[in-house]
Amino acid sequence: MSMNFRLLRRVFFGQALPTKRMKHQLLPKYLALPVFASDALSSTAYATEEVLLALSLAGAMALPYGVPIAVAVCALIAIVALSYSQTIMAYPTGGGSYIVACENLGLYPGLIAAAAILTDYVLTVAVSIASGVAAITSAVPVLINHKVALCLLFIGFVSLANLRGSKESGKLFACPAYLFILCLLVMIGAGFFQYVVHHGHLQPLTHETLSASQPLTIFLILRAFASGCSAMTGTEAISDGVPAFQEPQSRNARTTLFWMAAILAVLFFGISFLAHAFQAIPKPDETIVSQLARGIFGRGWFYYVIQAATAMILILAANTSYADFPRLSSILARHGYAPRQLANLGDRLVFSNGILLLGVFSAVLVIAFHGNTHSLIPLYAVGVFMAFTLSQAGMVRRWWLHRGSHWKLSATINAIGAITTGVVLVVIAVMKFTHGAWIVCVLIPLIVWHFIAVNRHYRICKEQLYIGTETPRRYLRHHVIVLVPGIHRGVLRALAYARTISEDPEGVYVEIDPAQTSQVVAEWRQFGMDTPLRVLKSPWRSMTEPVLGYVDMLLNEEKVDLVTVVIAEFVTTKLWHRMLHNASGLLLKLVLLFKPNVVVTNIRYVLHN
Amino acid sequence: MSMNFRLLRRVFFGQALPTKRMKHQLLPKYLALPVFASDALSSTAYATEEVLLALSLAGAMALPYGVPIAVAVCALIAIVALSYSQTIMAYPTGGGSYIVACENLGLYPGLIAAAAILTDYVLTVAVSIASGVAAITSAVPVLINHKVALCLLFIGFVSLANLRGSKESGKLFACPAYLFILCLLVMIGAGFFQYVVHHGHLQPLTHETLSASQPLTIFLILRAFASGCSAMTGTEAISDGVPAFQEPQSRNARTTLFWMAAILAVLFFGISFLAHAFQAIPKPDETIVSQLARGIFGRGWFYYVIQAATAMILILAANTSYADFPRLSSILARHGYAPRQLANLGDRLVFSNGILLLGVFSAVLVIAFHGNTHSLIPLYAVGVFMAFTLSQAGMVRRWWLHRGSHWKLSATINAIGAITTGVVLVVIAVMKFTHGAWIVCVLIPLIVWHFIAVNRHYRICKEQLYIGTETPRRYLRHHVIVLVPGIHRGVLRALAYARTISEDPEGVYVEIDPAQTSQVVAEWRQFGMDTPLRVLKSPWRSMTEPVLGYVDMLLNEEKVDLVTVVIAEFVTTKLWHRMLHNASGLLLKLVLLFKPNVVVTNIRYVLHN
Repeated sequence: MSMNFRLLRRVFFGQALPTKRMKHQLLPKYLALPVFASDALSSTAYATEEVLLALSLAGAMALPYGVPIAVAVCALIAIVALSYSQTIMAYPTGGGSYIVACENLGLYPGLIAAAAILTDYVLTVAVSIASGVAAITSAVPVLINHKVALCLLFIGFVSLANLRGSKESGKLFACPAYLFILCLLVMIGAGFFQYVVHHGHLQPLTHETLSASQPLTIFLILRAFASGCSAMTGTEAISDGVPAFQEPQSRNARTTLFWMAAILAVLFFGISFLAHAFQAIPKPDETIVSQLARGIFGRGWFYYVIQAATAMILILAANTSYADFPRLSSILARHGYAPRQLANLGDRLVFSNGILLLGVFSAVLVIAFHGNTHSLIPLYAVGVFMAFTLSQAGMVRRWWLHRGSHWKLSATINAIGAITTGVVLVVIAVMKFTHGAWIVCVLIPLIVWHFIAVNRHYRICKEQLYIGTETPRRYLRHHVIVLVPGIHRGVLRALAYARTISEDPEGVYVEIDPAQTSQVVAEWRQFGMDTPLRVLKSPWRSMTEPVLGYVDMLLNEEKVDLVTVVIAEFVTTKLWHRMLHNASGLLLKLVLLFKPNVVVTNIRYVLHN
Repeated sequence: MSMNFRLLRRVFFGQALPTKRMKHQLLPKYLALPVFASDALSSTAYATEEVLLALSLAGAMALPYGVPIAVAVCALIAIVALSYSQTIMAYPTGGGSYIVACENLGLYPGLIAAAAILTDYVLTVAVSIASGVAAITSAVPVLINHKVALCLLFIGFVSLANLRGSKESGKLFACPAYLFILCLLVMIGAGFFQYVVHHGHLQPLTHETLSASQPLTIFLILRAFASGCSAMTGTEAISDGVPAFQEPQSRNARTTLFWMAAILAVLFFGISFLAHAFQAIPKPDETIVSQLARGIFGRGWFYYVIQAATAMILILAANTSYADFPRLSSILARHGYAPRQLANLGDRLVFSNGILLLGVFSAVLVIAFHGNTHSLIPLYAVGVFMAFTLSQAGMVRRWWLHRGSHWKLSATINAIGAITTGVVLVVIAVMKFTHGAWIVCVLIPLIVWHFIAVNRHYRICKEQLYIGTETPRRYLRHHVIVLVPGIHRGVLRALAYARTISEDPEGVYVEIDPAQTSQVVAEWRQFGMDTPLRVLKSPWRSMTEPVLGYVDMLLNEEKVDLVTVVIAEFVTTKLWHRMLHNASGLLLKLVLLFKPNVVVTNIRYVLHN
């Protein structure tokens, strides 16, 4: 690694951190809230809109059903938060769905939960970024044609921020998260004030009318509810991230969870209520939040602050996934279900490979779905609720197995959570199946199959590498040959090496033009240090085949364990000079790579200029 | 190399040929003529057209000047053929311009001639193929939009035929060449017969009129003459290819040269005369030969035979270059002015790398010039006449130096050749400079510079590799370290290897997580065969940097000549399994590649499944 490359790395990723600074990266509550809760909170920016979009199929008259649906979702939030607070206390080292399901329900439920939740992290990044860009294009319509490019830009930005490490990202993301919460609370307060002042008779935001294309059925209301459940994505983040909190970890995490749930419920209900009060109608080019902000404050500076805060929290919400996807992958990697590289701590004490993987996957999603939030959301909630259900069901079984004090109350709370989220899972999967949920239903089994295949490979490797009871060999029967293309300094150095590592090395010359052999033999007699030289004939002018044949003969007939082929290799200082040398050494190396019991040793000879 | 790959190679390139079959590849005269003369002969398909195209700028009245210009070109053909017949006799082992200029005028004129002639071979392929495709599109106009694709197809076809070897290609190309000569002779005969029968008053081929855009000046006539000289490309091919003839090589080659010159002159003059007699006018969508054939025979079957034969000989004319470009490159490579790989005989006893290079360069030209013959031709004749001039001048000096019998006559013949072609060279370069000849004028010095740079590199290498008077070292001071990522079979095999090649190897463990060190140390004590283990601390979690540091210390402080780093490497049977193993070994190998006096030895351990 050259100095320049290192410098570049320092500029982008910051100074490398020694392992002993690990502890210093832990987050206080006020920083943990923006890091872990921005996903959940930011979903209020699109959840109401998704509900209204589903209802609008039955015309304007169906829209008021948004308010009771919001109440139902808020109740669900309360149930899930209560359930997860028990998980946090029970699993102080991090109780993601994978861990909980694995420990209490068995390996396969655990892997299914892991697959579901990993899929979801990727979707969180894609949906949040796409939705954040929608907030920007609502305020600045000229940018609408550059949606995908903007999305990719932001994915790159968040990835980079996370490669620098989680403490820095906590600080980076705290401001916008709190600004967003403040702005929306002010907007909801102001909106509610206007509602009270006008005795509930507000000027509608739009004069457009909605014509019904479907009757208002229970089916449609369930579909709207399924859409509203997208508000709940990210709720499990905190329980997975307990080890990132400052001590006392569990208590701090639980407090943060309750705060998050409360803020989430207030914002989601508030927006849904205002959307009803102002008779907002979902539009393709302007978000509901943008419509409300414009209606309540006019297109003044505060409108732009709200849009900016919304965009920022959405884009930074992706950060929740960046905190958790690498962490979960590293756990899977340590358990042997994902490639080991995902468990490596990078320069900055973060799981760099997981961060990069998440960035790539979500960029692919954004490109495939043209940065369109509405087409991504149906893929979204299935994974979340699958993980919720498995995790809560795991907790129920855990309480039953341990039967500590108050175990019946705890089990009941988690059972309610499990049953509720299970029912919602079925509703979402059925209602959204044809809209994209089928993709996730196909993907999750594939990912689980991949986990199992990886694990099988690692297990087989371990068995094969296990030393066991047999005594390992102390020495190998070994024959060393030096390839002699001609007699020069490079070859003599290779010969000296061969003589150093073996008592009876041998030179090997491949005869392509018989006219040259006698000269090579004569020079070898002079410089070959009494080492024997074997001349291999090559009637077909191949450099590799005679050597391969001779090596085979040594292995099969001479019964040596290993043949070392020493090749003098030129190293040139200019790249194009490399092309001026016969590539036969390289070719031979490649061919020998596929032969067992052959070691190719390149003795490099540096050519100056 | 797997069996499948070999089989595929056999199907495309034929069975590999042993070196001793070299002699059998020599060509009898009747096969040598199509192989070496099709370039020169085929140029009659476009040379007349190029002359008329230049003249047509001065209107229809200028076109009759085509006939005297044709006579001048025929005279030039005679002079050049006579000159070259002397070269053939003087250089029985092949007297291309490079050899002749080099030997008699010095290195730089030789290299200039070589660069000119190599450029020309590439242009021959591009022009001939483009012009052959024009013959096809004249007869089948719907193909005109696929010109470039057709060109590339034919380049691929000719390249493949040549990779199979020259004997086969001789046979492959004999038929179309003789068919073309026959067809054109019949056409010229029939046309001349009609001319005589009608007492010189033939129906004009077209009723279109040509308006003059320029006055008819001597300048314009010279430009037309310069265009006509494109008929002479390929004349030198035979003198370069003498060793490919059957014995007696020189005499056979000379006879073939005279036959070629005679046929060339007859065809070129015949077509030019008929074009005048039938008052043919050059058109963008139909060639002159196509117009004549249609005028003389009507659009019947014989018209199509003529077009097909023209297309075939043009496309196969490229073959002349495929016989000579690789041969000349191999000579340059043997002399150390071109990369050595160009001197390797392939499986089928042909210079495969030269063939591939020619195919690639000409394909690039065809793409760059959109397969347009007219825009390629101005680049063409400069190189040819530069080579002619240098070669003939070299011959003059040779006669003067040797002063054998009749040396004055011989010198005079070559002097006339040199002066004539020299004057023509100046005319062509000046007249065509702005039309594209400048490209060649820039390219040739660049190629010459490249020859010199390659040679300089080879010379410096040779000096550095020269053993000289100092006594080479018989042994090296050597330290062997085995990288220990953990204790398993693969590492123990690497350790056994290290113990085999050194009396005091050492294990090296990089400590990333201090918690694991004691276990590794304990296991090493059990299985390490009394080899010492060194633990290198890595506070920044890098696998490579501590090893690099230790190797540096060994080289600098312990004064060893060479450090061998033995790394156990897993070989997996499935490619994706490779990705499941930490790449740190690979990374270390890469980093160590740039350190002198370090040998990295991979002891591969094959993991099944």
